[in-house]
Amino acid sequence: MKLATLKHPRHRDGRLVVVSRDLRRAVAADDIAPTLLDAIETWSACHQALQQRYAALNSDQAPEAFDFDPRQAAAPLPRSPQWCDGSAFLHHGRLMERAFNTPPIPEFDTVPVMYQGASDDFLGPHDAVPLPDEAHGIDFEGEFGVVLDSVPMGVTPAAALDRIRLLVQINDWSLRALGPREMRSGFGFLQAKPSTAFAPVAITPDELGDAWRDGRVQLRLHVDWNGQWFGHAHGGAMNFHFGELVAHAARTRRLSAGTVIGSGTVSNAEREAGSSCIAERRVLEMLDQGEARTGFMRFGDTVRMEARFEGTEGGADAQAPFGVIEQRVVRDGSGQA
Amino acid sequence: MKLATLKHPRHRDGRLVVVSRDLRRAVAADDIAPTLLDAIETWSACHQALQQRYAALNSDQAPEAFDFDPRQAAAPLPRSPQWCDGSAFLHHGRLMERAFNTPPIPEFDTVPVMYQGASDDFLGPHDAVPLPDEAHGIDFEGEFGVVLDSVPMGVTPAAALDRIRLLVQINDWSLRALGPREMRSGFGFLQAKPSTAFAPVAITPDELGDAWRDGRVQLRLHVDWNGQWFGHAHGGAMNFHFGELVAHAARTRRLSAGTVIGSGTVSNAEREAGSSCIAERRVLEMLDQGEARTGFMRFGDTVRMEARFEGTEGGADAQAPFGVIEQRVVRDGSGQA
Repeated sequence: MKLATLKHPRHRDGRLVVVSRDLRRAVAADDIAPTLLDAIETWSACHQALQQRYAALNSDQAPEAFDFDPRQAAAPLPRSPQWCDGSAFLHHGRLMERAFNTPPIPEFDTVPVMYQGASDDFLGPHDAVPLPDEAHGIDFEGEFGVVLDSVPMGVTPAAALDRIRLLVQINDWSLRALGPREMRSGFGFLQAKPSTAFAPVAITPDELGDAWRDGRVQLRLHVDWNGQWFGHAHGGAMNFHFGELVAHAARTRRLSAGTVIGSGTVSNAEREAGSSCIAERRVLEMLDQGEARTGFMRFGDTVRMEARFEGTEGGADAQAPFGVIEQRVVRDGSGQA
Repeated sequence: MKLATLKHPRHRDGRLVVVSRDLRRAVAADDIAPTLLDAIETWSACHQALQQRYAALNSDQAPEAFDFDPRQAAAPLPRSPQWCDGSAFLHHGRLMERAFNTPPIPEFDTVPVMYQGASDDFLGPHDAVPLPDEAHGIDFEGEFGVVLDSVPMGVTPAAALDRIRLLVQINDWSLRALGPREMRSGFGFLQAKPSTAFAPVAITPDELGDAWRDGRVQLRLHVDWNGQWFGHAHGGAMNFHFGELVAHAARTRRLSAGTVIGSGTVSNAEREAGSSCIAERRVLEMLDQGEARTGFMRFGDTVRMEARFEGTEGGADAQAPFGVIEQRVVRDGSGQA
């Protein structure tokens, strides 16, 4: 099942729609649950009705269906109760330690690291990205994530996997010039992590077939920057699976339904996979060539991200199961208005 | 005006009530705005109606009024779009550096430090505090905070003060044994910060009269642990005022209406003021006596916090303008169920 949220002028949380497997058609579902958060909070009561509507839509039996326009889509959850982002691809984490010249993270191989992010203002897949200053080191981060039902404190990694309701694809915007000072403060990222963006549809794990396996999204994440290939790292390389990340987040607290947990930047040790963020490419340039040659993003730049089934997996219509994130960075002027 | 949220079995965000100045009586306000978050999000449209009901309640002109029972109160916002907590009392921060033996925070005197906290599951003023393990170093932290209307990115500290709608009193529960590793990771607090608790009423700044001045709550915060005096530090000692904290949080993002910004642990350099958290007392013991003698909280322990008007300020009925936080720590077993 694929679910999306259409923007609505009067509803901050938008309106829930079911989207066809090929992402071409949609049908309203706000009679079943007004918003995606409502659906997650009442999942046992509403998921069958949503599934039936999804089946009808896919078989052209939904008379009220309309063309799905991802440009009208908000993030599947325009805001969520909680957003915690891990750093589960250790190859990325080790490179970032070199980039930031920060001390080694304690127990990095055995205990996930994770930061608490802002979840009040997620961006849709085609939303502009307003930021105040190019000098902040504007960077994208391609990730996968999970949307949870409620999770009890102290959940085990195995039990945590059963609380995953939906999978999402994420662009975790980052400001690299602001990160190192916040890391050295010990208080973690705040200014270095502006609003996070999401691909248009959140999907149930069964939509990935074998590509949802071992608590990981086993797909490549294709990233283009200003229309040029930047990377296609594989999500299967996560050193901690999503159940382990959820259990880490829930060690001393329960998690509300609708909590989003992220994988951290998708990253592979194989150089030919490229990178899912600029900072990582810059470290590799430093290591290989003695200096970082690639700059960060400029106002007007675009980034495009999509996870893809490879070859014939899922058929031609299902090549990008989450749809596409395609965003442009723009100068924000709201504070001066 | 004083606002509270009564728990409701079917509404996660509870139901809005107006509470009398003396905290003895309340009257429903969910016909004006169903929840406090709704009220904040539509403040310009609803605050006059709320104010009128408050005036009627205070003059015994509200026939539907009932006795206000703070034990039925949730946090004023049982969940909020965002929770960012500063560390604006530098005396506390410097002592904590010694407690955790962490490197000095860069630019600590000139740039606020702030962490992003979980805002999906705030605790009410008399809610039990379920935690998994006494060995985690269970501690309270007495603080003040502000609830914001929407704030544009790049807001100035002066303009930020005008976006403050309500003031709150906070107990920011902390697990001291888990903090240092999370600080050294650079990703900030997550497991070290379980659910945060709030005093029963959120109040408009005018309720404090001259005690809301210079962007600070100019009141002592009285803290008792297991019925014994622990501290009465004064909120006026904040080194950064709330406008500066809000501007820090909004440097690279807009803030949604309902965002809560905290002061960090209220702390004074004068020893006779005591402390608002155990960790701070322990550092003072280390400095004075060579070792920390006070242990952290045990299951069954209680903490009580109230800000007070001193002497005749506000009259006898208004001595604790936010009401009282009084909580007991209990062993959580939900993950093993």
